[in-house]
Amino acid sequence: MTIRIAVINGPNLNLLGVRQPEIYGYDTLADLESQMRAAAGNNAQLSFMQSNHEGEIIEEIHRARNEADAIIINPAAYSHTSVAILDALNTFEGKVMEVHLSNIHKREKFRHHSWVSGRADAVICGMGMAGYLAALNYLMAS
Amino acid sequence: MTIRIAVINGPNLNLLGVRQPEIYGYDTLADLESQMRAAAGNNAQLSFMQSNHEGEIIEEIHRARNEADAIIINPAAYSHTSVAILDALNTFEGKVMEVHLSNIHKREKFRHHSWVSGRADAVICGMGMAGYLAALNYLMAS
Amino acid sequence: MTIRIAVINGPNLNLLGVRQPEIYGYDTLADLESQMRAAAGNNAQLSFMQSNHEGEIIEEIHRARNEADAIIINPAAYSHTSVAILDALNTFEGKVMEVHLSNIHKREKFRHHSWVSGRADAVICGMGMAGYLAALNYLMAS
Amino acid sequence: MTIRIAVINGPNLNLLGVRQPEIYGYDTLADLESQMRAAAGNNAQLSFMQSNHEGEIIEEIHRARNEADAIIINPAAYSHTSVAILDALNTFEGKVMEVHLSNIHKREKFRHHSWVSGRADAVICGMGMAGYLAALNYLMAS
Amino acid sequence: MTIRIAVINGPNLNLLGVRQPEIYGYDTLADLESQMRAAAGNNAQLSFMQSNHEGEIIEEIHRARNEADAIIINPAAYSHTSVAILDALNTFEGKVMEVHLSNIHKREKFRHHSWVSGRADAVICGMGMAGYLAALNYLMAS
Amino acid sequence: MTIRIAVINGPNLNLLGVRQPEIYGYDTLADLESQMRAAAGNNAQLSFMQSNHEGEIIEEIHRARNEADAIIINPAAYSHTSVAILDALNTFEGKVMEVHLSNIHKREKFRHHSWVSGRADAVICGMGMAGYLAALNYLMAS
Amino acid sequence: MTIRIAVINGPNLNLLGVRQPEIYGYDTLADLESQMRAAAGNNAQLSFMQSNHEGEIIEEIHRARNEADAIIINPAAYSHTSVAILDALNTFEGKVMEVHLSNIHKREKFRHHSWVSGRADAVICGMGMAGYLAALNYLMAS
Amino acid sequence: MTIRIAVINGPNLNLLGVRQPEIYGYDTLADLESQMRAAAGNNAQLSFMQSNHEGEIIEEIHRARNEADAIIINPAAYSHTSVAILDALNTFEGKVMEVHLSNIHKREKFRHHSWVSGRADAVICGMGMAGYLAALNYLMAS
Amino acid sequence: MTIRIAVINGPNLNLLGVRQPEIYGYDTLADLESQMRAAAGNNAQLSFMQSNHEGEIIEEIHRARNEADAIIINPAAYSHTSVAILDALNTFEGKVMEVHLSNIHKREKFRHHSWVSGRADAVICGMGMAGYLAALNYLMAS
Amino acid sequence: MTIRIAVINGPNLNLLGVRQPEIYGYDTLADLESQMRAAAGNNAQLSFMQSNHEGEIIEEIHRARNEADAIIINPAAYSHTSVAILDALNTFEGKVMEVHLSNIHKREKFRHHSWVSGRADAVICGMGMAGYLAALNYLMAS
Amino acid sequence: MTIRIAVINGPNLNLLGVRQPEIYGYDTLADLESQMRAAAGNNAQLSFMQSNHEGEIIEEIHRARNEADAIIINPAAYSHTSVAILDALNTFEGKVMEVHLSNIHKREKFRHHSWVSGRADAVICGMGMAGYLAALNYLMAS
Amino acid sequence: MTIRIAVINGPNLNLLGVRQPEIYGYDTLADLESQMRAAAGNNAQLSFMQSNHEGEIIEEIHRARNEADAIIINPAAYSHTSVAILDALNTFEGKVMEVHLSNIHKREKFRHHSWVSGRADAVICGMGMAGYLAALNYLMAS
Repeated sequence: MTIRIAVINGPNLNLLGVRQPEIYGYDTLADLESQMRAAAGNNAQLSFMQSNHEGEIIEEIHRARNEADAIIINPAAYSHTSVAILDALNTFEGKVMEVHLSNIHKREKFRHHSWVSGRADAVICGMGMAGYLAALNYLMAS
Repeated sequence: MTIRIAVINGPNLNLLGVRQPEIYGYDTLADLESQMRAAAGNNAQLSFMQSNHEGEIIEEIHRARNEADAIIINPAAYSHTSVAILDALNTFEGKVMEVHLSNIHKREKFRHHSWVSGRADAVICGMGMAGYLAALNYLMAS
Repeated sequence: MTIRIAVINGPNLNLLGVRQPEIYGYDTLADLESQMRAAAGNNAQLSFMQSNHEGEIIEEIHRARNEADAIIINPAAYSHTSVAILDALNTFEGKVMEVHLSNIHKREKFRHHSWVSGRADAVICGMGMAGYLAALNYLMAS
Repeated sequence: MTIRIAVINGPNLNLLGVRQPEIYGYDTLADLESQMRAAAGNNAQLSFMQSNHEGEIIEEIHRARNEADAIIINPAAYSHTSVAILDALNTFEGKVMEVHLSNIHKREKFRHHSWVSGRADAVICGMGMAGYLAALNYLMAS
Repeated sequence: MTIRIAVINGPNLNLLGVRQPEIYGYDTLADLESQMRAAAGNNAQLSFMQSNHEGEIIEEIHRARNEADAIIINPAAYSHTSVAILDALNTFEGKVMEVHLSNIHKREKFRHHSWVSGRADAVICGMGMAGYLAALNYLMAS
Repeated sequence: MTIRIAVINGPNLNLLGVRQPEIYGYDTLADLESQMRAAAGNNAQLSFMQSNHEGEIIEEIHRARNEADAIIINPAAYSHTSVAILDALNTFEGKVMEVHLSNIHKREKFRHHSWVSGRADAVICGMGMAGYLAALNYLMAS
Repeated sequence: MTIRIAVINGPNLNLLGVRQPEIYGYDTLADLESQMRAAAGNNAQLSFMQSNHEGEIIEEIHRARNEADAIIINPAAYSHTSVAILDALNTFEGKVMEVHLSNIHKREKFRHHSWVSGRADAVICGMGMAGYLAALNYLMAS
Repeated sequence: MTIRIAVINGPNLNLLGVRQPEIYGYDTLADLESQMRAAAGNNAQLSFMQSNHEGEIIEEIHRARNEADAIIINPAAYSHTSVAILDALNTFEGKVMEVHLSNIHKREKFRHHSWVSGRADAVICGMGMAGYLAALNYLMAS
Repeated sequence: MTIRIAVINGPNLNLLGVRQPEIYGYDTLADLESQMRAAAGNNAQLSFMQSNHEGEIIEEIHRARNEADAIIINPAAYSHTSVAILDALNTFEGKVMEVHLSNIHKREKFRHHSWVSGRADAVICGMGMAGYLAALNYLMAS
Repeated sequence: MTIRIAVINGPNLNLLGVRQPEIYGYDTLADLESQMRAAAGNNAQLSFMQSNHEGEIIEEIHRARNEADAIIINPAAYSHTSVAILDALNTFEGKVMEVHLSNIHKREKFRHHSWVSGRADAVICGMGMAGYLAALNYLMAS
Repeated sequence: MTIRIAVINGPNLNLLGVRQPEIYGYDTLADLESQMRAAAGNNAQLSFMQSNHEGEIIEEIHRARNEADAIIINPAAYSHTSVAILDALNTFEGKVMEVHLSNIHKREKFRHHSWVSGRADAVICGMGMAGYLAALNYLMAS
Repeated sequence: MTIRIAVINGPNLNLLGVRQPEIYGYDTLADLESQMRAAAGNNAQLSFMQSNHEGEIIEEIHRARNEADAIIINPAAYSHTSVAILDALNTFEGKVMEVHLSNIHKREKFRHHSWVSGRADAVICGMGMAGYLAALNYLMAS
């Protein structure tokens, strides 16, 4: 049976491939979706969602409670400030994979702490889009 | 004359009665509304609102400035992170009762501080839904 | 069967109704006792005790271990400094309701933390004497 | 050539002129717009936006990436809590002027730090609406 | 009319003149009383009390509410730990003079902060018994 | 010549053997006294005292200044809050052995610091009642 | 009637236009004076003073108590270390405008706090010399 | 051309598969080596080293400076205390992948900070042995 | 033989009696000098000095090394910031009496710490000018 | 059956009896071994090991996993810095007794915290070599 | 060509050789000058300046901008409090050698941090006057 | 008589001249040894040792207790983490000179604190290899 995975991207990630490409690369969210769907094949059923609104991310997690077996989330800036997303994830019973494109531990001090990490099953940072694929592979294999 | 009270519930509380019932109990927000309306009778006129969006909660408080005499609010996770909700409450001139279902002081350290408590007239935590009723009774009696 | 409740008031509360009435109101501890006995009727059996001595409060809690089913305690200033009262409450197996007349979160920073809250089942502050009555009602109903 | 400037106001500022006028004055956001348009004349092309939603402010900044040369922003309470708005501003390449109506350094401790200040080119606080005009003049002159 | 002054000494001060005389001198509490009564003459009516019990000091302050116009207090070690004595002094409306025999700022770090100083009208430390006399003179002159 | 030792137990220890026996064991203070008297034989002369009152413990230490050569003290919760007991011990010239039944370093953070340890000659924790005996043996041998 | 304004510049600002021009620009204090006098016209009467001595700045503020209606001050490095200048400003009853050439919030952490900001009516930073002119305009208009 | 990768495991990891298997699983370091060699095939040339000695790990990193193109390191407990390993890695010019078997952010507070993360290009935690494989794949693909 | 005493007053104290008289009273430094000379009579030889310059205060203390037996100093704002004055006092071998007009412990947090207190023999605060007289009396008597 | 106990001493303890004998006494590690073997008799089987190498101590603990029932460890300076030794002890299932010769709580602040204490069953400090014997007796009796 | 070096000494150093000679030695500033001139010979051209005034030190550094190639500075107590001296040094482009007579890291905690060290090229402390000579030699050789 | 000096270099310093030469220069440890031996001539007898192992450095210090009169140590990264090396140095009775190649106060915050500085007689940083020579000269002259 295929695993259902909700892929959730947080604020400003809609600009991926556009803003600061020297840091984040030239691939866009659409490219990410293509690569992940290719890697998933028939083994995983993926949904994709990006939002700049904390509330919408919370509600996407609520939706996932019924419609997904696992979550891959890049909470971006909300990683550092949102207890509400943490609480939403606490209501989710499947696996949670936290992904960051860059190594947040090499950036400003305030980016070193992520509320989500206290709930996540695994955390991957600094591998760019390959981090999402590693998370996907891990979920398909487990 | 009846007192007009806006009851406001914050993020993830739409899942009440569903998520972690061993902690939060089996009653839903709808049950809460029923119990409070029963307790209010003709002595208080209640409005109910729940949102996962910080901005919507702010706007509900703005609405209450003109249409309510008091607020009963459970800001949930936004208690710990939202200065904007505190600012909105600072523009409200009636009584503000802060309610938490669980005793937040027995939970993780970061839940011990609530921005809203610096504005609230009273704070009740750990009494489950009975906390809302105690707040309601207090407002009707004062 | 009636529930047995020990009502314990901490230091300086013997001055209730006398000191700073504009803050704490004009009701005395005797008034509190009257109101609570009236509310309790035959449903709860109440004992009342006030002390300025940390040791006496500890010993009252020890007494309650055998002679009470629940405790309503306003530890006043000892809330912020007494680990010994916390330890005494940790030996008590019934429900513990912590009450403060004023909203301690609106006062000086050092009053925001109460050692007792880490043990209490519920905390009520800012409702004046009505806080004791809400605690009493909660215990009678639970 | 006229400079294009996006003027962005954060949460609760829709109440300007209404709430606490003794602090914030009697002028409304509409008055601000009039004054700024008058000062801009043909030298600057202004857009105005106010929102209580963090996500909408982020998206307005995204819009400004293509349609504005500079931003004047009063992030209000989000100054103190929003890393996501900081990240959005980091994707903007023009000048960013941060304005606060009151002197935030004379208010509560938690208002002394603004995430946006780490990105802003200039910060003005305590000059009321004149702060916006000073920012506008600065942008038109630079 | 003579001023009525309650002189209150805290824990371990009963050992004055006995313990560590090289630090605290050879005079005892009885010597202090003699010196102060001599200095007071008919201009001040003094009462003396020493206790090792926080509760007794609180109750002495309560007594002083009705029977004294001013308090001279050396709270000794309770200076650093007792919010309850601070609260008791907050209920007293006369002048409060805080005295320490040694200069507490030259001793261990934890002796630098005194809860009582936040309520005292004046603080004298490091003058030995002369500190009490200076406090007495000040009260008689004011 | 026999050594005279004052054994002092702090707040809540009167419940030893009764409260939380899974942590503290089933032996009572009376059992402790028996075991220690047996171990002392004619080589040490022991006095026993337990109190929930900080002031009484201070006064017992004062008594020991004249009537004991050493102190074995378990200050329980007062370890963490009482500077006054530290001061009392500072007036005592014999050896001071601090004993805790449980390993306080494995418990809550606030139990890791003991004011008394800064004065004690030795500290033993986590050995249950055997800790008192080890202290006793050490004193008899030294 | 013209407003009298004392313009005060702190340590190292005598090097303006000379040191690190890539940061602070090529204009000197003399240029600043010219620009401000031009902007003031007959509407404001300006005095200028620069000093590297904390004491001289204090005394200039004392002078301003009698001879000026407002102060525009750039305390430079003394912003971060001088309580004495804060105290001097506290004795001044007119408006105080604090100006910094660069945005101090983008510089080292220790430059983020200014003692003067707790007294200033308004703070402007990051606008270079234009900040002084904005302050001047504000004072002339208010 | 094959990439040369040094796989370095820190203190206590020689017990892998033996200690606390419910946390770390039943696979041993030998199993890890087999899995990684299988995944590497001819595309990567792997060396394996485990040590409980900080100095030996430093010297292995020095060796890698000449003999490896990338490092995969699980510094275990030294993550939290070793600046010397950080310094050694700072002398290495290839990619550094940091791997932890468990999600260190869900464990004790002191495990949340890793000195190595400030140098690593990417960090993976909580994926068990699959974390090493993801790191390997990333290096082979990059 | 008369004792030689240097009375040193720090920054802004030249405004005594002029600024904020409701706090500091209407007496000036000249009044203080008169009162102290009257109290000294032939028993003490006083010199008076006030300066807003840290360096001048240091040099006055150096002068006192040869020409005074004791110092009475009110360092005002420099209390909180000047290590250099502390160092100067450390080179002085006579008694040092620190005086503050107001009770600095009731004012802003940053006024609670005085560098000078770590060197002073005694500290008096909150007694207004009477504090200087108490210091003088103490020195004449000791 | 005899209990097998590994006695482990950390860095610099090879100098025991040699360095600072006025603090640590004149007995050497060899003396310690003699005393402990005498006390053990046939009831305990002891192994002794001292190392200045963190890694060797870790490996000795690994060895003890199979060959000892309990550990008595004096980690010396590594107490304060080694998470790796803590982790090694976490893999050991028998009792762990932590011993320090001096009372570490009376020494520099940084010696008050020991990583090992969070794992140890009991902690003894300040009893010199008698501390090892007390630990041994406790293990033989339990 | 000879190197021009400004030697600057901060507050209280005029007392060198006079105050606390057991700590600072019996040599005076004049002796220092002799020794340094002897060591410099014709290879370095030295100027000497000592001041107790922060402002004068700043101005000496300004002078050195044009008239010296390097600075040797012992900022004494201003090391710990003066950002203004740091800023002055930031405007100087030559080498800056910071010297302290004693090892400031062995003294009070507040002497461990020097603002100047963040700008200095090298820091020497604890070598007494030899530290100035080492700095001089270094400058002459570099 | 010649002074015997042990020169000890800590972790990663074996790479001197190789890693980051733009920071640390092109000279190697061998070059350092040559330069120091040349400077020592017959006046000092030098031994050289470098290790990446904390334990080996401790043991080298132990060796120096008998075979050296002074130590010159560059503890490199162990400066910031090793209490054990501090303890070893505390057992050494000769002079200890601490040397760092770079000015550690200009680098990351965590490099500002060195455990060794609390024991060293002098500290030199930022002078490159010349620092070792200055230390050597100082020892030969003292």
